[in-house]
Amino acid sequence: MSSFWSSLVYRLTPYVPGEQPEDNGLIKLNTNENPYGPSPMVIKAIADESDDRLRLYPEPESVSLKEAFAAYHAISPHQVFVGNGSDEVLAHTFQALLKQKAPVLFPNFSYSFFPSYCRLYEIEFEQVLLTDELEIRIEDYIKPNGGIIFPNPNAPTGRLLSLDSVKALLDKNTNSVVVVDEAYIDFGGVSAITLIDSYPNLLVVQTLSKSRSLAGLRVGFAAGDPGLIEALTRVKNSFNSYPLDRLATAGAIAALEDDEHFQFNRQQIIDSRAKLSTDLMILGFDVLPSAANFLFAHHPDHHAADIAAKLRENDIIVRHFDTPGIENYLRITIGNREDCAKLVTTLNAIL
Amino acid sequence: MSSFWSSLVYRLTPYVPGEQPEDNGLIKLNTNENPYGPSPMVIKAIADESDDRLRLYPEPESVSLKEAFAAYHAISPHQVFVGNGSDEVLAHTFQALLKQKAPVLFPNFSYSFFPSYCRLYEIEFEQVLLTDELEIRIEDYIKPNGGIIFPNPNAPTGRLLSLDSVKALLDKNTNSVVVVDEAYIDFGGVSAITLIDSYPNLLVVQTLSKSRSLAGLRVGFAAGDPGLIEALTRVKNSFNSYPLDRLATAGAIAALEDDEHFQFNRQQIIDSRAKLSTDLMILGFDVLPSAANFLFAHHPDHHAADIAAKLRENDIIVRHFDTPGIENYLRITIGNREDCAKLVTTLNAIL
Repeated sequence: MSSFWSSLVYRLTPYVPGEQPEDNGLIKLNTNENPYGPSPMVIKAIADESDDRLRLYPEPESVSLKEAFAAYHAISPHQVFVGNGSDEVLAHTFQALLKQKAPVLFPNFSYSFFPSYCRLYEIEFEQVLLTDELEIRIEDYIKPNGGIIFPNPNAPTGRLLSLDSVKALLDKNTNSVVVVDEAYIDFGGVSAITLIDSYPNLLVVQTLSKSRSLAGLRVGFAAGDPGLIEALTRVKNSFNSYPLDRLATAGAIAALEDDEHFQFNRQQIIDSRAKLSTDLMILGFDVLPSAANFLFAHHPDHHAADIAAKLRENDIIVRHFDTPGIENYLRITIGNREDCAKLVTTLNAIL
Repeated sequence: MSSFWSSLVYRLTPYVPGEQPEDNGLIKLNTNENPYGPSPMVIKAIADESDDRLRLYPEPESVSLKEAFAAYHAISPHQVFVGNGSDEVLAHTFQALLKQKAPVLFPNFSYSFFPSYCRLYEIEFEQVLLTDELEIRIEDYIKPNGGIIFPNPNAPTGRLLSLDSVKALLDKNTNSVVVVDEAYIDFGGVSAITLIDSYPNLLVVQTLSKSRSLAGLRVGFAAGDPGLIEALTRVKNSFNSYPLDRLATAGAIAALEDDEHFQFNRQQIIDSRAKLSTDLMILGFDVLPSAANFLFAHHPDHHAADIAAKLRENDIIVRHFDTPGIENYLRITIGNREDCAKLVTTLNAIL
């Protein structure tokens, strides 16, 4: 602490990311990373870009990457915003679109970065209760608000809201922005990007970190009406002219172009999720239905914190949130087949 | 524009970076990039890091890069903050340290991003006049303030404030933070990082974009008292957990380790600056003394905007600011020897 802090700094509640040990001996099922590597085309594109041109600034508006994302989703580049990971995109979104007179609404169990953004930008928020089955019920969001934001599938639950439900919410909430954070959509849902032409208040946020295996490259997107994109761009250009470096830009474009790698990779994870879910249920876990690359599960006979600690003793890391209401759940990232098998064997031994 | 914007968005004045054309036929002397490429060790480090590990998040606190920067400057890693380019570091600095009741002070001709940050975070500011010779006079900053920030050497003037002057300012201004943006310090000044142990209100900001030839990689630093660093970290962790990707981190560490490349490279630019300055004076320009990798010059017989336009017709881009008081100056980046010679030949032909 220091007497030179802005008064704001004292009031912050910084986000705490999952542990990121560099020790390769651990089985890391705690931060929802993809167990499979990115497309070889990504590695090649980075190598091709890595030369004396690094002395030059990157494109300030990332036009070529916007074009690649727009082409993939059959939308216009004017409907696309890019940022240094979807966390940066979300930060700008809170400041540019969700800072309003009425409180922003999001689920009580959701991405734990949302309250951090609100404190950073001094935005009032209201956490809307999930159902007893940890589902989002859209009726609960139909009330005066300064914006609505939720991940879909939700994190840490993994539960999916259907595209019809998203549409129903948009039909009923037309006076404020609805932000759908689709970090995990590729593992089992249908993107709401198809709705942006119809709803000028819809912003869809995506990332290359999960389904494109590029958490280490930091690339996120928003898709929406050009008016919403312009707000994000005005904030971005008051914050940092060049948020994406040359290598991330080149790698991201290549990732979007290799659809075959993407489809194969995500199918492997979907298949492993089905098997792991069954295996955990055989071990006595209650497992929520998941459309993401993780499972949210609890065991009626064992405390989640104890299971997490015992797994850690066996070099397996899963995520446990010490949050009342979900303190007895574990969030388990879908690893590769060997990692999943090792997890099940270990659980079998320790439970 | 859109009815969904936060009220803040309307009040922003986004920064406008220099033109960044990808056409390699142009001689680009407009954004103070280094004409020489980065260290070959940087390219190798990026290649070594570019593999399946891109699926994993980078270090959230960039500890290994902090250690490399601290080792280079013989300070502690706890005195170091890193960001996605020094623009991001500066943005966090405004929000974390310069948002106070009294206005922040900076020179009237200075980095034009400063007013953009102030509007983004709703910070009052006062622009302190430079002298007639476009110098910072520290006596003018000795008054109640919520912080002081200036580039050293200043941009776009290139003029250097001596380390003794910085020290004198710190001795007289002890109740608010003094931020020295040293983006160009390696081209002719002495860093104030040596003073951070003595002044708990001093924050020094640096970048790899200029003297390390890595504008395309986006890496910036702040050095200061651990209390100041903690404020920046709290804001950063309320904004984006992982601002630096794996490749930028690896490349940045390698850049700091190759001192031989760095010293040779910057000496070439210092030598070219001396020659170009003389050549411009022979052509009739008034050239300010510069400690940066650019010159700030005007010609008594020709309008700066006209010269810039004619140079552009000849495929040479320089920076012209349409700002009253300096509207007749050009900011000319020091290119390589061939670029400088071409500039002089072209000016000779068009003036």
